[in-house]
Amino acid sequence: MKIGLIDTMFARINMGKIAEETIKEIAPEIELEKITVPGIKDLAVQVRILLEDKNCDIVLALGMPGKEAIDSQCAHEASLGIIYAQVLAKKPALGIFVFENEAKNDEGLKQIVFNRVKKHSINAVWMIKNPEELSKRAGTGERQGFENVGGID
Amino acid sequence: MKIGLIDTMFARINMGKIAEETIKEIAPEIELEKITVPGIKDLAVQVRILLEDKNCDIVLALGMPGKEAIDSQCAHEASLGIIYAQVLAKKPALGIFVFENEAKNDEGLKQIVFNRVKKHSINAVWMIKNPEELSKRAGTGERQGFENVGGID
Amino acid sequence: MKIGLIDTMFARINMGKIAEETIKEIAPEIELEKITVPGIKDLAVQVRILLEDKNCDIVLALGMPGKEAIDSQCAHEASLGIIYAQVLAKKPALGIFVFENEAKNDEGLKQIVFNRVKKHSINAVWMIKNPEELSKRAGTGERQGFENVGGID
Amino acid sequence: MKIGLIDTMFARINMGKIAEETIKEIAPEIELEKITVPGIKDLAVQVRILLEDKNCDIVLALGMPGKEAIDSQCAHEASLGIIYAQVLAKKPALGIFVFENEAKNDEGLKQIVFNRVKKHSINAVWMIKNPEELSKRAGTGERQGFENVGGID
Amino acid sequence: MKIGLIDTMFARINMGKIAEETIKEIAPEIELEKITVPGIKDLAVQVRILLEDKNCDIVLALGMPGKEAIDSQCAHEASLGIIYAQVLAKKPALGIFVFENEAKNDEGLKQIVFNRVKKHSINAVWMIKNPEELSKRAGTGERQGFENVGGID
Repeated sequence: MKIGLIDTMFARINMGKIAEETIKEIAPEIELEKITVPGIKDLAVQVRILLEDKNCDIVLALGMPGKEAIDSQCAHEASLGIIYAQVLAKKPALGIFVFENEAKNDEGLKQIVFNRVKKHSINAVWMIKNPEELSKRAGTGERQGFENVGGID
Repeated sequence: MKIGLIDTMFARINMGKIAEETIKEIAPEIELEKITVPGIKDLAVQVRILLEDKNCDIVLALGMPGKEAIDSQCAHEASLGIIYAQVLAKKPALGIFVFENEAKNDEGLKQIVFNRVKKHSINAVWMIKNPEELSKRAGTGERQGFENVGGID
Repeated sequence: MKIGLIDTMFARINMGKIAEETIKEIAPEIELEKITVPGIKDLAVQVRILLEDKNCDIVLALGMPGKEAIDSQCAHEASLGIIYAQVLAKKPALGIFVFENEAKNDEGLKQIVFNRVKKHSINAVWMIKNPEELSKRAGTGERQGFENVGGID
Repeated sequence: MKIGLIDTMFARINMGKIAEETIKEIAPEIELEKITVPGIKDLAVQVRILLEDKNCDIVLALGMPGKEAIDSQCAHEASLGIIYAQVLAKKPALGIFVFENEAKNDEGLKQIVFNRVKKHSINAVWMIKNPEELSKRAGTGERQGFENVGGID
Repeated sequence: MKIGLIDTMFARINMGKIAEETIKEIAPEIELEKITVPGIKDLAVQVRILLEDKNCDIVLALGMPGKEAIDSQCAHEASLGIIYAQVLAKKPALGIFVFENEAKNDEGLKQIVFNRVKKHSINAVWMIKNPEELSKRAGTGERQGFENVGGID
């Protein structure tokens, strides 16, 4: 099994490293392929390359959009590209973005980043090793970056 | 005949279970294939996989976007991906979303979810077994999640 | 020659019937293939299926988006999907939507629907039988749903 | 060499004719293939057909979106479709739109249309015959529809 | 190794020349292929052509959107097209835009353009020659056009 990790120079926290450490801890047998690109709009093509040509079973596409309106538009374009790349490759990728304006200060931002990247790294491992872990949490209000909100049924 | 069901951990109600129970009740002979993904942006690739590689005749892609602006954008990206996946696979999928801000409280939200998922589960069964059931309701103001509004001609 | 007609249960007027009657009156020799889907986001995949697998020369994709903001977003997604399906199939389809808020009341809405669907049904027939009818109206301010506005040159 | 011209019945000025006359004057040896469609959302599929199946080296896709919000959304969808069609065909097309609200009156609108269509017709000829004409104007603030604004370096 | 450079006549600064000079200085052995198109919406198809048919390892797609709302929409469409072209070609391109309203005057705009184009030209060279240069800057808040903002971890 192999997981691809793509992060950016633009991000202000080394997201790829968090993902790498999390996966190595919980599933050391999984092979990793890491790559860094300039920014989030450069993720989509690498998603397809890693899934189709580098034999990855799943990819984490990691980024931290800035707080301006143009950054929000970039994130939208990047997300559509990541979805598009998966659909063409017929293998999954998780687009994991933390927006700079999700927190009030650097400390808060760090907490969100660590929480979201760790949880999604676990999700990725589950998706290729133990999909039943996701099934048993269907509709339970799982959140990445924050506390789970829980189900209402 | 086979129907694919994809739901999310993010949702706060087990939408896949509602769909499963509805379909089993009205068409127990239809085979089901269920999968759970983290969130709505992860649905599109599974739509294509279920339609093309898992032999499903139709897929229900189920999700509950949150109430923030970013959730609305995610839902937009997810919807475009689901449409895109169908067009590539040349088989239908129903994207079934309930937005958290469609109701004022949890009780109202549950009602919308149950109503919408049930009606669309029936639609899916009709689409592959009895398409004439849809034809005879053409232009009649059918709604899922709420009461039908009726036709005006 | 064959025209595909796709309409929705969501619409409040039987748009497919208007198209069918119009085409039968002006070009009874053209074969029709009709299908009804739940809503406008379900049109795109059927456009591709009708054009590529059901041998249609052109398709009318008919729908009536509601008046909420979410309906407008759905219409946007549906339109992009219909364009995408055509481009892949390399055959034309006309996406024909009437928004509920285009008129002040049901009577006004009916008039727009009848006018727009009839005119576009004629357009579809021209596109496959008499494309010169479109050429001679190039740049003349043709409108569907309302009176033509005319050219200004 | 062959250029495809697609215009619409919706436009209020015969844009295809302006393009045809301009190209015939500056490059009479270039073959033209003309087609008229109802509106701008119908352009994308014809772009692909003309580029791939009708042997055109480049296509001009001409339209005049109305002044309502819905027209702006249509133009956005049409533009994405035209880009998409080119990328699939691996040959260029120029999407040439004049929005009705770019001018205060019909006379002003006509001037913009004539200026923009003529300049882009020349661009299209250059792109297939003399690409160096574009290269020497790189970064010089060329505008179509209005006066050039000039470079700042 | 070969890099493709695409710029526009619309831009007010010769962006392709800045990229060319930067690359020639730091990696004179890399072959360059340059092309100029009218505007940013014409970039996407050339990205695919350069990557797939002209043997480029990476492409820089350079443009300067104007300051009107319509320019912002064009930039959005152009960006989506550039991402789409890369994903299809399975090779990277960097979409490098400088919006006219990013600076208060021409002098400020020039500085942003020079800074952004130079840094991204270096990024492109690194991506095909020394990808480890990007990896070691992962999550360090690199910015193009402005000063780097630095990491926060």
